[in-house]
Amino acid sequence: MLRPCDRDVEVALSALSGNVITHVFLVACGGSLSIMQAGKYFLDRYSSIASDALNADEFTYRDPRRLSEQALVIVCSQTGTTQETVRAAQHAKFKGAHCIGMTLDPDSPLAKEVDWVVRYQASYTTGIPINAADSNYAVLYRLLAGFLGLAEGIELLPRLLTSLAHLQAAIERAHIKLEPRFAKFVGPFGGASAIYTLASGPNYAAAYSFSTCVLMEMQWYASQAIHANEFFHGPFEIVDKTANFIVMIGCDETRALTERARDFLHRFGSAERVLVLDANELDLEGIDETFRAYLLPLIFFDTLWKFAFRLAEIRKHPMLTGRRYMKKLVGY
Amino acid sequence: MLRPCDRDVEVALSALSGNVITHVFLVACGGSLSIMQAGKYFLDRYSSIASDALNADEFTYRDPRRLSEQALVIVCSQTGTTQETVRAAQHAKFKGAHCIGMTLDPDSPLAKEVDWVVRYQASYTTGIPINAADSNYAVLYRLLAGFLGLAEGIELLPRLLTSLAHLQAAIERAHIKLEPRFAKFVGPFGGASAIYTLASGPNYAAAYSFSTCVLMEMQWYASQAIHANEFFHGPFEIVDKTANFIVMIGCDETRALTERARDFLHRFGSAERVLVLDANELDLEGIDETFRAYLLPLIFFDTLWKFAFRLAEIRKHPMLTGRRYMKKLVGY
Repeated sequence: MLRPCDRDVEVALSALSGNVITHVFLVACGGSLSIMQAGKYFLDRYSSIASDALNADEFTYRDPRRLSEQALVIVCSQTGTTQETVRAAQHAKFKGAHCIGMTLDPDSPLAKEVDWVVRYQASYTTGIPINAADSNYAVLYRLLAGFLGLAEGIELLPRLLTSLAHLQAAIERAHIKLEPRFAKFVGPFGGASAIYTLASGPNYAAAYSFSTCVLMEMQWYASQAIHANEFFHGPFEIVDKTANFIVMIGCDETRALTERARDFLHRFGSAERVLVLDANELDLEGIDETFRAYLLPLIFFDTLWKFAFRLAEIRKHPMLTGRRYMKKLVGY
Repeated sequence: MLRPCDRDVEVALSALSGNVITHVFLVACGGSLSIMQAGKYFLDRYSSIASDALNADEFTYRDPRRLSEQALVIVCSQTGTTQETVRAAQHAKFKGAHCIGMTLDPDSPLAKEVDWVVRYQASYTTGIPINAADSNYAVLYRLLAGFLGLAEGIELLPRLLTSLAHLQAAIERAHIKLEPRFAKFVGPFGGASAIYTLASGPNYAAAYSFSTCVLMEMQWYASQAIHANEFFHGPFEIVDKTANFIVMIGCDETRALTERARDFLHRFGSAERVLVLDANELDLEGIDETFRAYLLPLIFFDTLWKFAFRLAEIRKHPMLTGRRYMKKLVGY
């Protein structure tokens, strides 16, 4: 069954067809940038076309030499009002690049600057539950898999669409599976001042967004999304029996990196402060082997989002209204 | 005057000459990875050839499709014994790529795996002061500027070599300039539990290495290298009058991003807890305009390195012998 975003993706990719593209820039800020990091992993694995995932202002001011008429720039902003992302779209167009804009709002400032608008849905801002097949990750992968078919004849889109039809059910099973574990960790983590996230490959996206947009932004923890191997080249020195870690172990090619970090944490950390989420314990039925690795960051983030609400409750720090600057302060 | 590393660079680049290179992978771990991030900024600005900076194990396991006989892989490990970086060199060779290895030790395991060894020097491990013209940053830029000349006819190497001849003096002037400021901040920062670093563009490299390899690894602070614009999309919510930040403001194209973050920190943080280092206050005489932006992360890191020793003193936590795992624990 086609969803509204499928039509948007089709329109954008049809219009793009026939153009030579030599570089894909994936550009956004914060949580929207995090999905781009997973998107780049996907392109790195499958595409012969080079890509970069960059913060929107970094992209605009860095102004990479490869940004040209042969570049495809995919930007994303939930509300479509993020000033840096609007600037990035303007800059991409100024340099003659093709520009696709992902946003919830097809009438937003961002939508006006891009060549093609691709809508997605989010429950975090509206509070209305969505089907994960309409989420930012799902729509980005549609774009990238569709682009691979178009530009390189690699036909992954049908397998993706089948997988997306089973995604929401997999997420709901993950919630049930992880709920008792979250109940156990909410006590030790609730009273902590620092919580680190740790992942590799596409799951670094989930670690990044959970660390910066949830733990820091919404709960004011000290935090960092630590890459699972970089961990051993500095950050691991902070590990003792009081250190708090959330470890996300995927089923992508880099799985061994995070397993190694988990083993270290189990050895030198304490069991009640090392929360491990592992792809292998989840029931991903219906999701094609090709896409399990790529949809996992979405599943991990979605389940951890519920965990964050439990932390918020015992910290007496409301998730969505507890911020002091974002969406409160004007002009900074 | 030619230095030993100039000869190594020349040999590697001459041998590479005539080969078609379509992608440059900059691969290492921890502090050695940080310099690669600045190197990628340099390539993004000047080169029409695509590049990536990746953690060594992430590179090997991700195994990007663009890694081929047309790729140049530059790896770096100080001792030449970093197992992940040795694996990455083996993997690069297995895929038919050209591989240059930067290391202190031309007889190390890493040196044996690469096509060409390029030596550099470091005072941190040996304790013997070096001239910064022989440092990892300086040697990486020699390689990249030389490569640009070779592959694209962009002749930046002479300007780089002139600049490097004036680098050590600029660093020494920076030490003198910043010493009184460090003296003021060592008190408030010494007793803190979390210190964040903040930068954009090439200086993110210095923020990353100081945060992970010094503050976390050597002083066990909670920390994160926050990108100056990503700051506004989550992390800035942790800012209050007790938050500790080191802000590095460069003279590259992204300067405005970090200035904006500094202004926010001055407004909502407290003056004695926001340590700002600014390119504009340093005397960079003799360093060509083209290379000031790229040599600044080295200058910032080198000056902050001295600050870290002052922190170590009042924390009674020795910098080089205070680690619990690194170089102490075997087999993890």
